[in-house]
Amino acid sequence: MTRLLEGKALAAEIRAEVAAGVRALIGRGGRPPGLVAVLAGADPASRLYVASKTRACQEVGMAGRTLELPAAVSAEELAARLRELNADPEVDGILVQLPLPAGLPERRLLELVDPAKDVDGFHPVNVGRLWLDEPGPVPATPAGILELLKRSGIPIAGRRAVVVGRSQIVGKPAAALLLREHATVTICHSRTRDLAAVCGEADILVAAVGRPGVIGPEHVREGAVVIDVGINRLAEPREVERLFPDGGERQAALARLRERGSVLVGDVDFARVAPRAAAITPVPGGVGPLTVAMVVANTLRAARARQGLEPA
Amino acid sequence: MTRLLEGKALAAEIRAEVAAGVRALIGRGGRPPGLVAVLAGADPASRLYVASKTRACQEVGMAGRTLELPAAVSAEELAARLRELNADPEVDGILVQLPLPAGLPERRLLELVDPAKDVDGFHPVNVGRLWLDEPGPVPATPAGILELLKRSGIPIAGRRAVVVGRSQIVGKPAAALLLREHATVTICHSRTRDLAAVCGEADILVAAVGRPGVIGPEHVREGAVVIDVGINRLAEPREVERLFPDGGERQAALARLRERGSVLVGDVDFARVAPRAAAITPVPGGVGPLTVAMVVANTLRAARARQGLEPA
Repeated sequence: MTRLLEGKALAAEIRAEVAAGVRALIGRGGRPPGLVAVLAGADPASRLYVASKTRACQEVGMAGRTLELPAAVSAEELAARLRELNADPEVDGILVQLPLPAGLPERRLLELVDPAKDVDGFHPVNVGRLWLDEPGPVPATPAGILELLKRSGIPIAGRRAVVVGRSQIVGKPAAALLLREHATVTICHSRTRDLAAVCGEADILVAAVGRPGVIGPEHVREGAVVIDVGINRLAEPREVERLFPDGGERQAALARLRERGSVLVGDVDFARVAPRAAAITPVPGGVGPLTVAMVVANTLRAARARQGLEPA
Repeated sequence: MTRLLEGKALAAEIRAEVAAGVRALIGRGGRPPGLVAVLAGADPASRLYVASKTRACQEVGMAGRTLELPAAVSAEELAARLRELNADPEVDGILVQLPLPAGLPERRLLELVDPAKDVDGFHPVNVGRLWLDEPGPVPATPAGILELLKRSGIPIAGRRAVVVGRSQIVGKPAAALLLREHATVTICHSRTRDLAAVCGEADILVAAVGRPGVIGPEHVREGAVVIDVGINRLAEPREVERLFPDGGERQAALARLRERGSVLVGDVDFARVAPRAAAITPVPGGVGPLTVAMVVANTLRAARARQGLEPA
């Protein structure tokens, strides 16, 4: 029987732990941690995502708000706002929602965020600390993957982990964390030859490609653990039919497509891969909920560090 | 026929390029670049190594000197000296020779080096830049490995590279650089199971373990390129005999042992691995000379950046 690794319950568990941590912080005379999400431009998906993060903060007793800026914001204006947030003592965490509007120097702007408030872990000094195994914030999605594996009791040390995708946000930091947990780690990408054979070596396969259903059964060893980080929207009935071969599931997916205009799928061809896997994350409902929970956890950690209070 | 990848000629090539760069910098009104190696304690191997770096700087027209501190130097005193070097406008590069004497907080002290002068690339912000594929100094040994591969015309993109060892100085940064060159990269370590099988997948095998001759023919695929980063001293005739099975070589090695008290070998069992490999680095004379050359190249790059002068 394939085990379904659902993130929702684990995310609730983490959020409850963070809520307890926030109460303890306040009980010892601290301020409620504060997160500000900076959103430039009005991409609806980004706005939804940012709203879910700030709401999650509020739900655990933190102050969470969004600083919305017009899509036409200049680099100078955005830089000035980041400096204000850096200087604001009530702000513990700053998230700059990516991608920024075209034309803005993303990297240079991210480097302006005070590393102590960089709850995304995107600042070079925090990327360095991650690879140096020093304390610091870890990007939320890879942190969520690790929590999912650990809290599901999946052994990592000595296992072969293959990460498909080498992005700064998921692939590379996930590799760093798996290595820290003593996995033997392989990083694959668009230039990898015979991807199926390399993926087939994995005890733990992390798919972070950003293309719907590209990881098929030929990529997965019988009994592997499959973590699907992809979030792709299908808008074509033909694509939906390809990834939902099963009668009942297909009808439900096509109904969702008609209702909402798109269907969410991961990078893994779930219907064909799941029967081979020992455990697999669904999309949606797998890694996604943990990402938001880890943003919240990172904000509490930043607040504790800035207020000089260790966990009780 | 196995190709021997010797670093000496390539290192001379790089040093000549750096010397030309130094002349060009001075020709355009710049100062000669300056490197200071900080050596705490009097470990003879470290002293020799530091001397080779400062001499190499002098040979290409830079100012190179060693700041020697007693083994009993306090963290505060060392920190104060690093701050002085940071502030000194004639110092472009600062090397802190590792390991520092026991008891000194190595990581905290390394973080005090101005990232713009950190020619070792050990500062977290520079480690971060490496993984973010941003410009910055790259640790000298991994940078030397890449130069050796590229200048030897060994293709990297799409090839499988396996790095054995996950140190901050060699293994991890080598993995970052191989990934940047579009290899499919696997990182192995002490917790890796069936190391021979994993290494056997490599088109390019980088051994950075620090144990004499642990990589044997069973770890190497026929036709692989083998880069040996290990520098180990054998002091026992029995060890020498194990790694030098061949009559003439063995006699020469035993003679070196009698003369000098030790024999230098790598992490690769050269005698048994070389016949299988398409190309292999010797120890000594492989990666070693390139490491020093890359320190010199990093210092020129730092000086150019600090003086606001791009390469001509």
